Amino acid sequence: MKKLINRPDRVVSDMLAGMALSYPDRLRHLEGTGVIVRRDAPVTGKVGLVSGGGSGHEPAHAGFVGTGMLDAAVAGEVFTSPTPDQILEAIKAVDSGQGVLCIVKNYTGDVLNFEMAAEMAAAEGIDVDHVVVNDDVAVEDSTHTTGRRGIAGTVFVHKVAGARAQAGGTLHEVKQAAQTVIQNVRSMGVALTPCTLPEAGKPGFTLGENEIEIGIGIHGEPGVERTKVRTAADVTTVLADKVLSDLPFQPGDRVAVMVNGMGATPLMELNVVGKELHAILKEKRIEVVDTWIGEFMTSLDMAGCSITLLKMTDDTEKWLSAPADTVAVRRY
Amino acid sequence: MKKLINRPDRVVSDMLAGMALSYPDRLRHLEGTGVIVRRDAPVTGKVGLVSGGGSGHEPAHAGFVGTGMLDAAVAGEVFTSPTPDQILEAIKAVDSGQGVLCIVKNYTGDVLNFEMAAEMAAAEGIDVDHVVVNDDVAVEDSTHTTGRRGIAGTVFVHKVAGARAQAGGTLHEVKQAAQTVIQNVRSMGVALTPCTLPEAGKPGFTLGENEIEIGIGIHGEPGVERTKVRTAADVTTVLADKVLSDLPFQPGDRVAVMVNGMGATPLMELNVVGKELHAILKEKRIEVVDTWIGEFMTSLDMAGCSITLLKMTDDTEKWLSAPADTVAVRRY
Repeated sequence: MKKLINRPDRVVSDMLAGMALSYPDRLRHLEGTGVIVRRDAPVTGKVGLVSGGGSGHEPAHAGFVGTGMLDAAVAGEVFTSPTPDQILEAIKAVDSGQGVLCIVKNYTGDVLNFEMAAEMAAAEGIDVDHVVVNDDVAVEDSTHTTGRRGIAGTVFVHKVAGARAQAGGTLHEVKQAAQTVIQNVRSMGVALTPCTLPEAGKPGFTLGENEIEIGIGIHGEPGVERTKVRTAADVTTVLADKVLSDLPFQPGDRVAVMVNGMGATPLMELNVVGKELHAILKEKRIEVVDTWIGEFMTSLDMAGCSITLLKMTDDTEKWLSAPADTVAVRRY
Repeated sequence: MKKLINRPDRVVSDMLAGMALSYPDRLRHLEGTGVIVRRDAPVTGKVGLVSGGGSGHEPAHAGFVGTGMLDAAVAGEVFTSPTPDQILEAIKAVDSGQGVLCIVKNYTGDVLNFEMAAEMAAAEGIDVDHVVVNDDVAVEDSTHTTGRRGIAGTVFVHKVAGARAQAGGTLHEVKQAAQTVIQNVRSMGVALTPCTLPEAGKPGFTLGENEIEIGIGIHGEPGVERTKVRTAADVTTVLADKVLSDLPFQPGDRVAVMVNGMGATPLMELNVVGKELHAILKEKRIEVVDTWIGEFMTSLDMAGCSITLLKMTDDTEKWLSAPADTVAVRRY
């Protein structure tokens, strides 16, 4: 295993310590908790937003902590849900009395632990609610999930709910904004290579020399099909067809688009996929109002990408384009 | 070879077309030229800034086109200098009569072709000048270079010169700002894996299962030492020692720091390196005023990173922190 780390069991705490040292004017690391909060948390008069999950998906989720997005991110060990105690620390650190919304990706451990933390927070008098993101259209159930998995579309939920909270929305309004995104967002991914967990030291699964896996999960959970290497145009068509037909997206719809790198895929290739996706959407007379290309929800050193489409409503479009100032997403 | 591309000979044009489709409000692709310009180029009354080089280093250079950084980026084929004709198109597209500065990384082909383009532009009556960035302290000459190579520190030159131009600096003043950065910036990299050129279809060199290469160039040019996998702390110390002793950086200096991913290295690992680098600088009583962690100057799918230190002057600090609005770098 070749990784720029010190010890496998220290990689998450080293990473979080590094982030706190690199962005001292933006972020605080609540040491020993895996929690990164906005420097100025709790923000008076604002609903707090908490997300998180297993590590290995960077910049998710600490990269989205800041003005107009999250107030706190909770980092579990690599590909491992954070504990209820960790999540409770985050909730407490961002509650200013206006309540806290947790944005949870649909994995069994995450949902259970966020729900338990919410109960603990409620017992301490905090008004807390949560939403569950399940944007991955590839499979209905998986090794880690009952129901669909939450993947890169979660970042659009962070952005929209974050802007709604920043604009003074109540807990109910912020949850509504998040739910609207969840209803209208769909994603699907492809892997070219597996990823290697630091503790394991070897890939979690294997792919042949010329083999790719369509519909892969962000922890390397099985997808829907293994196939030979195909062109970017072909791969994008396969992903887009499944995503488009699911909601379904219709001619005349306005959408935001994300092409998300899984960790080891060059930006060059993501832009080639972006070109193909734009061509497909144009042909279907679906209008793209916003495009996000880059790494948002990764899977360690996996090569591959996911595509995400989010259907606009007037409110969603307003909040998606609102200012944000985080390490990984900045908007004027 | 597993890549999300259509055809190896179309990868650069596909990528640039994709960028233009994804960021239509920001960028224009001068089709058939490999040139990406600011949507609003030429900007009246402003010195134009042009950079570029071989492709495969994304987000360099088109990702840095926008307010407060570059006016145009010229993309050659993968790891191949753009031609003088291409560069001339870029210069002409951004000249508003105030002159144009070209920021060139020190590779023999780039320097020759930018110089030839400048002569051609001068013959057409454009006031054009250039600077050459040579921040890589690893080796003095290399397979592609006479003198030191230009690597990730180039992005700091883009930022500072771009802000100086945006603030209305003359061609002379913008060049001065760039030269000050070049004098004060030093970098060095390490590779964990080689990279694969689309046209070649296989890695340009090999590294053993547990081998890394210290001092690698951004095209896979040989470094200074092959060694066994070492901890992030050890690797960072080796790179930082060489960088620090070169300028040299002194106790009491104020610096900006970059930890640049080579393309396939997870952000998690870059943040671990960031932690180690902050620890080293603190111990040497060097003050960090700004930290950039991420992918800025990549080498296709190479795993590894480089570290860059830039010593602050009052002017450099002012321009480095000034607003910028590009695809890859945004500052308020």
